[in-house]
Parts: sequence; structure tokens; C-alpha cells
Amino acid sequence: MMETEIIITKKPRLKKPVLIEGLPGLGLVGKLAADHLVKKLKAKHFADLYSPHFPPQVNIQPDGTIEVPHDEFYYWKNPKKNGSDIIFLVGDYQAGSPFGHYELAGYVMDFAEEMKVKTVYTLGGYGVGYLSKKPKVFAAVTNPALKKKVEKAGARFEKTGGIVGAAGLLIGMAMLRDIDGVCLMGETHGQIIDARAAKAVLEVLNNLLGVKVDTKELEKRANVVERE
Amino acid sequence: MMETEIIITKKPRLKKPVLIEGLPGLGLVGKLAADHLVKKLKAKHFADLYSPHFPPQVNIQPDGTIEVPHDEFYYWKNPKKNGSDIIFLVGDYQAGSPFGHYELAGYVMDFAEEMKVKTVYTLGGYGVGYLSKKPKVFAAVTNPALKKKVEKAGARFEKTGGIVGAAGLLIGMAMLRDIDGVCLMGETHGQIIDARAAKAVLEVLNNLLGVKVDTKELEKRANVVERE
Amino acid sequence: MMETEIIITKKPRLKKPVLIEGLPGLGLVGKLAADHLVKKLKAKHFADLYSPHFPPQVNIQPDGTIEVPHDEFYYWKNPKKNGSDIIFLVGDYQAGSPFGHYELAGYVMDFAEEMKVKTVYTLGGYGVGYLSKKPKVFAAVTNPALKKKVEKAGARFEKTGGIVGAAGLLIGMAMLRDIDGVCLMGETHGQIIDARAAKAVLEVLNNLLGVKVDTKELEKRANVVERE
Amino acid sequence: MMETEIIITKKPRLKKPVLIEGLPGLGLVGKLAADHLVKKLKAKHFADLYSPHFPPQVNIQPDGTIEVPHDEFYYWKNPKKNGSDIIFLVGDYQAGSPFGHYELAGYVMDFAEEMKVKTVYTLGGYGVGYLSKKPKVFAAVTNPALKKKVEKAGARFEKTGGIVGAAGLLIGMAMLRDIDGVCLMGETHGQIIDARAAKAVLEVLNNLLGVKVDTKELEKRANVVERE
Repeated sequence: MMETEIIITKKPRLKKPVLIEGLPGLGLVGKLAADHLVKKLKAKHFADLYSPHFPPQVNIQPDGTIEVPHDEFYYWKNPKKNGSDIIFLVGDYQAGSPFGHYELAGYVMDFAEEMKVKTVYTLGGYGVGYLSKKPKVFAAVTNPALKKKVEKAGARFEKTGGIVGAAGLLIGMAMLRDIDGVCLMGETHGQIIDARAAKAVLEVLNNLLGVKVDTKELEKRANVVERE
Repeated sequence: MMETEIIITKKPRLKKPVLIEGLPGLGLVGKLAADHLVKKLKAKHFADLYSPHFPPQVNIQPDGTIEVPHDEFYYWKNPKKNGSDIIFLVGDYQAGSPFGHYELAGYVMDFAEEMKVKTVYTLGGYGVGYLSKKPKVFAAVTNPALKKKVEKAGARFEKTGGIVGAAGLLIGMAMLRDIDGVCLMGETHGQIIDARAAKAVLEVLNNLLGVKVDTKELEKRANVVERE
Repeated sequence: MMETEIIITKKPRLKKPVLIEGLPGLGLVGKLAADHLVKKLKAKHFADLYSPHFPPQVNIQPDGTIEVPHDEFYYWKNPKKNGSDIIFLVGDYQAGSPFGHYELAGYVMDFAEEMKVKTVYTLGGYGVGYLSKKPKVFAAVTNPALKKKVEKAGARFEKTGGIVGAAGLLIGMAMLRDIDGVCLMGETHGQIIDARAAKAVLEVLNNLLGVKVDTKELEKRANVVERE
Repeated sequence: MMETEIIITKKPRLKKPVLIEGLPGLGLVGKLAADHLVKKLKAKHFADLYSPHFPPQVNIQPDGTIEVPHDEFYYWKNPKKNGSDIIFLVGDYQAGSPFGHYELAGYVMDFAEEMKVKTVYTLGGYGVGYLSKKPKVFAAVTNPALKKKVEKAGARFEKTGGIVGAAGLLIGMAMLRDIDGVCLMGETHGQIIDARAAKAVLEVLNNLLGVKVDTKELEKRANVVERE
């Protein structure tokens, strides 16, 4: 494990899979949204991403065992006949250096190609400096032909600027490999964990994927945070 | 794209090509000059340079699509029978670390050799701490035999010091590969975007290449900045 | 020596070896414990670990010769018929960067596998901000099945948190290679060299290994430090 | 030139060569001493060391040509029948990072082995915080058997501590390859360019090599600096 490595437990056979990424970032919006989806869909863990670009430590778990820093891949099989299966990339880590970001995104996209991923969705926050009661969802795409569908699902193409880290580079590298990519960013304060923005992102994503996932828990969590 | 890569869309057949580099630097002098030349000559895009030494992000464009940080290669076919064709290296990015500068310059010069480039021209600013009404153009060359021609074109050999980044390393590596190199540096304040210095550089370059390019727009832009 | 390298003087034949790591860290607890064990067991030096991730210098010894920064491997042959032999990794150096930590741990575990190591014990301190008269020993393991034995030997599974550097990554990588790993951490102040915590760790380790090693010197050293 | 590289102009045939290194360091002591020797012996340039660990720039020379950062190798043929020929490593650059120091030292020692170098002498300063009228020369060696000869030549084995950079790592790596190494360090202030310490180092080196080199110029230079 001197090199970045994806260790596959059991490779699933997937139907027209899409990749959904939700790693730590602004307001934890992307992570909250993706983790919620993994939980609600009961997606199954099938691979882990280890990297020397993660922190050089292990973490002691409450049961006394250790965990080596890694992100995780899950899959979900779409029960609909023509629906797309989903691969999730979730976890607590992003690379610790600019170069590391590129290296990790490259490894993930190699894996995505191997898994024949058709579209990459990355989830994140768009920092505006205030908390919104009804956060908008801003989008960016790799291909203008995707805009109509994404707008219909409830996102807006209103903002420019940089998308830093995995949420940006994964769709960037997807584009260079002729794979479709969509980044959904929930309008968020930037300094506060924002479950409401995560809920907003998830609703757009549900529309895009034709998946129905309850978002009440995110709503509740947002209310708790706001009361505090 | 874990590694620096030049992605070629369509490789042109070029006649005794020279390479002109104009990337961001002091006063944006080199970038302004090279971008202006690309525009006026209607040079054609044919390749892109991607690198993990660029910022780890993508940029949302006004139309909602994304751009992965990269520099660009253009070419221009000289209509004169014995004239040299031109390859341009332009863009918004330089490497983010000392090592990255060397790596990128190495990749570019490998490409230049493959394209049989005969001379490398790099464009930049020479910081003097004041704005000049009639900026001089200072030069540095890989080979004393080039001096006469460069002086005749209007540049001066008056200054010593370091040329940092692509403008320096490209002619440095050219020299080590027995390729001629000329760096033209417009006298500039250093902290202000300087279209007038870019115009001065361009006039010397026009003389060197035997190309006639209108520089009025740069003149206008300089006047606007000065009034402000 | 541009690359990390383990230079083996003479490879011993070992019986079911375990690896014990004690490198510099919190309170020097792990280093003191491992060095003491090496000395008391009269373990034999057999290999050195050099790395470009160590400081770029040599150190002048009192006799005027130099030493290149390195860590050292020792072995001890267990006189008991079914007892495990021991390999020690001791020294004054850890890697100087996050990436370097991963690289070194990878090299050490490759070597451990080559030596057919069955269990990795890493020794360290657990910082609590005060000095304890009777420091507890906290543990973390790669496998829940190891907990009973470790608790019986006197360590506790009470603490969570990160184990940074070699003490963490070596058992982390052991886990990923299906090798058992145990980290023993002596309760310690964190800013003071702590021989008493080292003694506590050593007592647990003695129980785990079925080895009897006198710890009086560590006791004395701790008393001296405390009087100061 | 993306990688460290030694470019050889013309490989000399040398008799039992020794390598003498004098690169920038404390008080420029090593550099002054080695440069003086190169000049006085009229040693001949035969190779250059380029590296991405040097600054990412080129330097404009007074004649308008450029220089790519590099260090240089010179040789000198000993007219004495059984005398050793000398290879010099001199220049203005050391690596800009810990890792780079290791990489460069590795490349230089590979080259030294190829040239069948028997002994490596590295020259430097030993910082004491004051200027001495008669600076002592401190030494460190790779092998206790070398001490007698070095002491007889006028150096002392009195100091411990680290020797950072090329002066340290070159003899360190020499030691690991069973090549003899001697570091001579002139007692120096540390913050002031110190020709007198360079002269002291050179006198010891002359004794060691059986070479007679006039050191008056260094003496004069030291006097000038002191009057200032």
C-alpha cells in the first residue's frame, strides 16, 4: 500500500451503471446526500480506495479495532427493467495535496471505466455565506446536451467559479474520457454542516435517476441544527 | 490524467515551425502578446496540455459546462513560400511547484522536438517597478549568434537576472537540446497588467518572424488601463 | 540510495517471528520500551532501513566517523521450543512527510512478509496531558479475536482516536495483508520523556510474548526524571 | 530534463581518481576552497549536473545568453606517477528539498562509482558563531582507519553534530558503497562569507592529496572582508 489502490471485495455485474460521488466538502453537503442515499437504498459495499495521499495514521474504533483511512464503493441494483444501477463513492477522505487530488481522481475514473460507468454525478455545496430556508441547487455539466434534463430535474445553471477536489476533477476527467458528468451543488453557508442543502441536492438527484428516496431524516437533522 | 499529457486533436503538417510561448507572468505581458497574435493570425487550436501540476479543480463556464485546467497549442501556416509556420503555447496556467515547472517544460520540449521546432520564442515581462510610456524590450538568447538578428528586430541585451517558469525553462531546455531559443521581455511595472509592454514585445516579434500583425487593440487597452 | 532500501547484513532463519516496532513518538514511550527489550534480550542486529524520507544529512559520532540516518532491525531467537522468535524495528527516525510514512510502512511490511512475520506489535504513547504514577496501557488491534488475549495481558480497550505514523500504519497495513497487529500505548503526558509508561507497555508485552525481561532500569530512569 | 541528469561532454581516463565536492553552504567555505583549487590547478570541465530539484529558472548572463541551473564536474590529471587524479564537483546549486538532496547525492555517487572514484572529499564550514583569525579544520570520516592520516594533515576530530546536504550525504552514500569519505569543515562564523576558513580547509586538503596550491588569493580576500 505504498500506492493508491482500489481493493475489490466482490465485483458486481451492473447494468448501465452511473457513479455518484459524495465526499467531504463545503457544508458536508455532498457527503450527507450520498451517505443518505446509500443508507436508504441499502446499497452494498464492494470495494475500498486506499491512498498514501490520505492521512498517515489509523483510527481506533469504539470496539478497539482499527481502521485504515479509505473511501468506499457501494453498489445498488435498480429493480426497474431499464433503470441504471448505481455505484457510490463515499467516505471521510479527500487527498491532502493538489497532486494527490489528480492522482486519486485518475484512479477512480480508471475504475469507473472498467465498471463501464455511463454518467458521473458528483455532489457538493456552493458557498454563498448565508443559510437558505429553501436552498437552490446549482449545476455544471460536461456536455451542453445534458442541461435540459438537469434543469427539468430542478437544478439551475446560474453560477460560475471553481469546483475544487473530487467533485470537480471526477467530472473533469469524465469529460476527457467522453463520459457524461453532472455536478450538483446545494446552496450553502459554507461554514456550517448543511443537511437542508443536502436534501435539496438529493431531490434533484432523485428526479434525475428516477429513484424515490425519503429525505425526512435530512429535514429533521437540518431543523435540529437550525434550532441550535 | 494522473500524468502530464498533451492531447492532440489533429496533428498539422508544419513547415520549419517555431514555437511561441505566452503564459501568465509578470504584468501578463507574455500572455497578452501571444493571445493577441493567436487571435489576429486566426491560428487554429490543435492540442491541449493537462497536468497534475495545475490546480486540482474544474471551472464552471458561463454556459454551465466545465473546463479542466489546461494550456493550449495553436498553429498558423505561413502563406509565404519560405516562411516558418508557428506553433503557439498559450493558456491560463503554469505549474504550481518548482518540480512541476521542470516537468511541464520537459513535456513541452519533447512535443516541440516531435513537431521539429527550429526556434523557441518565449514572451514575458521584465519588472522594473514603474510604467514606461515606451517600454523597451529586453532579450536573452541560447546562442550568441542569435544576438545580431534580435537586436536588429528592436530588442536590447542590457539586463541580467533570472527568468522564472516556462519563459525561462523552455529556452533553457531548448538550449540543452541544441534548439535555438529567444526570450523577449517587455519592460513593465510588475504589479499591473501591461498591454503596452505586450505591444512592444509583439513589435519585436513581428520583426523577427517577418509577420505583420496589427497591435492597435493592445494600444487601446493600454490607454484604458492608464486612464484608470 | 535514492530509494528507500532495507540493507540486510545476514538474514537469520526465524521461527514464527513476530515484529516489534518502537520508533520515536509521544513521550518516546515506544522507543524506550523497544530499545530496552533489544538490550536486555541481547538481540542481534541484522538489517538497516535507509530512506530519502529521513533528514538529508549525516551525523558525526563521538569517534569522528559518520552515521547515515537509518532505522535498524534486530532479531532474537526464542530458546523455548514453541516460542516465537522476534524481529525488532528500532531507531531514531520516522518519515518526514505523510507520503513518506506510507512509503516506509509499505517497505517494512514487504520485508515483514518476506520474513514470514505472524504478528506485528507496535509500541507508543497515548497522550493524556498528565503524568501518571501507574500508567495504564491502551490497546488497538486489527482483529477482534485478539482482544481477549491482549486484555488478559493487562491492556485496556478504552480509547479511540488516531495512531499517527509507523505505530499506526504498520498494523494498518498488516491488517490489509491479513497479518495480526496489536498496538500498545502507554498512558503518558505527551511532552515529557516517559520511562514509566515504557515500563508499563513492556510489562504487557512481556505477558503477550511469554518473555521475562527485567524493567528495573526503566523504573530507575523514570524516578530520576520525576525528581527533576 | 524532467529527471536529474549528468551530461558528459568528454569522459576522461583517470588514474585512481578522488572526488572533491565544494558546493554552497555555511560561509561558502567549501565552495570557495573547491573553486580556488579548480582555478589554480587549471582543472578541465567535462560534465554537468542538471536537476528538477534546482530552481525553475534560467539566468541571463552578461553577454545576453542564458544559463540553466547546474553544477559542474572538472578533472585534473596528477603529473606524479603514482598520484591520484581529481574529479571536482563545484557550482552554485544544492537541491531545494530533503528528498532532492538524497536524489542528487545518489546520482553523483552512481557517477563516482562509474568513474572508479576511490575517496570522496567534501568541503564545508562548521558554524561556531564567531570569526577566528586562525580557523581550525574539523573532520569526519567514513572509516576510523582514515583518522590518523587526516589528523596528520592538520584536521581535528573534536566536533559532533549533523552535516547537512551534499557535504554530508555524499560521504554518507560513499560509506554505504564501501568508498572512503572525508569531510573537512572550516571553523566559521556561519553568517559571513569566509575565505580564511576556506584557506584553512585547503591547506589540510593539500596535505592529504600531496598537492601544492598557492592560497594567497584566499588570504587577500579574507583580509578585504575583515577590513569591511
